Amino acid sequence: MREVRATQTQLAGFAARALTAVGVPAADAAIVGGLMAEAEMLGAYAHGLYRLDRYIRMIRGGAINPRARVCVVRETAATALIDGDDGLGHLVMDLAVSVGVGKARNSGAAWVGTFNSNHAGAAGVYTRKAAQHGMAAIYGAVGNANVLPPWGGIEPLLSTNPMSIAVPSASGDPVALDMATTAGSFGKIRAAAERGESIPPGWVLGPDGQDITDPRRAGEGYLAPIGGAKGYGLALMIGLLAGPLNGAVLGREVVDFNVDHGTRTNTGQFLCLISLEALGSSAVITERVAAVAGQFRESAPMSGHDHVRLPGDASNERQRENLANGVLLPGSLVSDLDRLAGELDVAPVDSS
Amino acid sequence: MREVRATQTQLAGFAARALTAVGVPAADAAIVGGLMAEAEMLGAYAHGLYRLDRYIRMIRGGAINPRARVCVVRETAATALIDGDDGLGHLVMDLAVSVGVGKARNSGAAWVGTFNSNHAGAAGVYTRKAAQHGMAAIYGAVGNANVLPPWGGIEPLLSTNPMSIAVPSASGDPVALDMATTAGSFGKIRAAAERGESIPPGWVLGPDGQDITDPRRAGEGYLAPIGGAKGYGLALMIGLLAGPLNGAVLGREVVDFNVDHGTRTNTGQFLCLISLEALGSSAVITERVAAVAGQFRESAPMSGHDHVRLPGDASNERQRENLANGVLLPGSLVSDLDRLAGELDVAPVDSS
Repeated sequence: MREVRATQTQLAGFAARALTAVGVPAADAAIVGGLMAEAEMLGAYAHGLYRLDRYIRMIRGGAINPRARVCVVRETAATALIDGDDGLGHLVMDLAVSVGVGKARNSGAAWVGTFNSNHAGAAGVYTRKAAQHGMAAIYGAVGNANVLPPWGGIEPLLSTNPMSIAVPSASGDPVALDMATTAGSFGKIRAAAERGESIPPGWVLGPDGQDITDPRRAGEGYLAPIGGAKGYGLALMIGLLAGPLNGAVLGREVVDFNVDHGTRTNTGQFLCLISLEALGSSAVITERVAAVAGQFRESAPMSGHDHVRLPGDASNERQRENLANGVLLPGSLVSDLDRLAGELDVAPVDSS
Repeated sequence: MREVRATQTQLAGFAARALTAVGVPAADAAIVGGLMAEAEMLGAYAHGLYRLDRYIRMIRGGAINPRARVCVVRETAATALIDGDDGLGHLVMDLAVSVGVGKARNSGAAWVGTFNSNHAGAAGVYTRKAAQHGMAAIYGAVGNANVLPPWGGIEPLLSTNPMSIAVPSASGDPVALDMATTAGSFGKIRAAAERGESIPPGWVLGPDGQDITDPRRAGEGYLAPIGGAKGYGLALMIGLLAGPLNGAVLGREVVDFNVDHGTRTNTGQFLCLISLEALGSSAVITERVAAVAGQFRESAPMSGHDHVRLPGDASNERQRENLANGVLLPGSLVSDLDRLAGELDVAPVDSS
C-alpha cells in the first residue's frame, strides 16, 4: 500500500471533487472539503478524509441530500434555528457559525440550534472558528450511533455525544477542548486488540456492570461514560440541548449511520457563542486567558510526564506540523481514497 | 446531640436571622436564606445550611461584604456582566438569573458573567429557576479551593469547578444535571474513611500517578478529574468561561475559603439561558423532552439496578419528600447551628 503526504489544499480539493461527482454543488463541496481538511490538519483523523467514503455512501443511499438548501427557519436577536434539509452536516454548521458570529457581534451572545442536519466532523473545527472571531464558544451534537446505555441501564440510548469548548487566548492558539462523553472509543479499542493489549477499566462495561478489559470481548458490553453517572448525565444533557430543543432526534430514533445509508438521520447540533467584547476589552480578556494558560503550562509535571498541557495543545502542535509538512495518510486510507477516486472517476488525492 | 426536622420556611428563616445579625440587610438575607433552604430541599446538603457557618465567618473576617451593592456593570441585548461587590454569591446569582431571564425573553438567549462574587451554593438551584421560566440553562463556576492538578501535573490549580445544565420537561420536573468535574469528593472520602471502606480507583491519584484507594492516605495525593484528561479539560474550560472572561480569578489566585476568611475571593460564575420559545413552541419542545425522558426511564436496567434514572431524578424525589416532611438535620449540623444561634443571639432553627 502506498502512503501519501498530502497538503491541506490537496485534501480539500480531493474531498470537493468526490462530493461534486455525487451531485453536491461545487460551492458547497468546496466548503465541506475545506472543513474536512481542517479537521485532518488538527489531527482529528477520525473526522477527516476517513469519513468521506461514509458521506458519499449516505448521499448515494439517500440519507444525505446532496443539493440541500440549508436555511434559518426561526430567529430572534440572539438565536437561530437552522433546518439542514438533510444536507451534509459541515454545510449546516458552516451556516451556524456565520449566523451565530453575526448575532453574537450584534447582541453579545448567540445560541444556534440545528435539525435535519448530519454528522459534521470534528467538533473543535467550529469552536475554533468562533475563537478566530474573538468569541468563546460551546458546541454539542447528538452522535450518529447509539453506543452508550444510561448509567444503571443496558439499552444503548446515547451516542458518544461530543462537546467542544474554545476560548481565545492572546498567545495565538485558543484553549480548545474537544471530547466525547464516553471514556474510550471503538477506534482505540480496535487498536488495542490489534496490538494484543488490554483496555483500561472504565472503558467497557459488561451487562453485569463489571469492567471488560479484553478488547476482543468489548462487543459483549457497552461503552462507559466518563465519570460514571456524571458522564452519562453530560451525554444526555448535550443530547437534549442539541436534539429535542431543535426538533432533532435523541434516543431510540437515532439512526446508526454505520449500517443505514438510506434513512435521513435528523441530526441536531447546538453552538453557543459569547463575544468577548460584550464582557470587557477583548485584548485584556485574552491576556488573562494567556496568563492562566502560562501558569498551567509552567506548573510542575507528574513523574512520567515531561510537561503539563492544555486542552487543544496537542491539536495546535499537529496543525502546525501538518501545515508545514503535509499530513502523512496511512496506506489503508490512501487505498480507500484511490478506490473512491476510481469509482467516481476523479483525480486521486495527490494528483495536484 | 439533638436531631431536628425542619421545614423550608424554618431553614430559610434561620439563615436569614443569622445573616441579618452579622450586618446583611434584611431583604438580602431573605433572598440568601431562601436559596440556601432550596438547596437543602433538593438534598444538596453540602450546599445548604451546612455552609452558613462558613459564610458568616467570611463576613466577620472581611472576605464577604455583607452590604454589597450587586449590579450590572456592562451589558448588551443578550449579555450582562455583574459586579458582585464581594457580596454573598447567592445574591449575585439571584440577580444573574433575573437579568438573564429578562434578556433571554427579549433576545432569545442570554449569557451572564459575574466577578467579585462568592460561593453561591448549589449550582442546580439556579438552572432549575431558569427551567421554571421555560428556559434551558447552563451554569458554571470557579470553585473556592484548588484541589485538582492539571492532568499530568501535580500542582492543584483547579477547584472541583461545578457545572449544572437543566432542561424543562412537560412532565413537570426538569431534567437537571448538577455535577463537580472531579470523580470523588472530600466529603465522600471522609465518609469512606469513617466506615473503614476503601475508595474506588480514579478518585485520588498519588504524586506518581498511581491510584490511592485507602481513604486515610488521600491527603498524600490529589483529587482526580472524571475521565482523566477529559475531566481536567472540562474543569479548566468551565473555569475560563466563569473566571478570566469576567475578570474573576482562576489558577494560583484562587483563595481557599476553607482556611482564609479575610481575603476577598473574586469568584466568577456564568449562566447561559435559552428561551425554548425562541426555538419553537415551548409546549412541543417540553413534550419531546418528556418523551425522551420516558424512553430512558422505561429502558431495561442493569442487573443490580431497579430502574434507570435521569439526571435530577434523585433531587426531584428528595425535594418532594423534604417539602412534605421537612428535612431531618443531622445532630452534628444542629449542634453547629445551635452554637451559631447562641453566638449571634438569634432564635434557633426550630424556634418557629
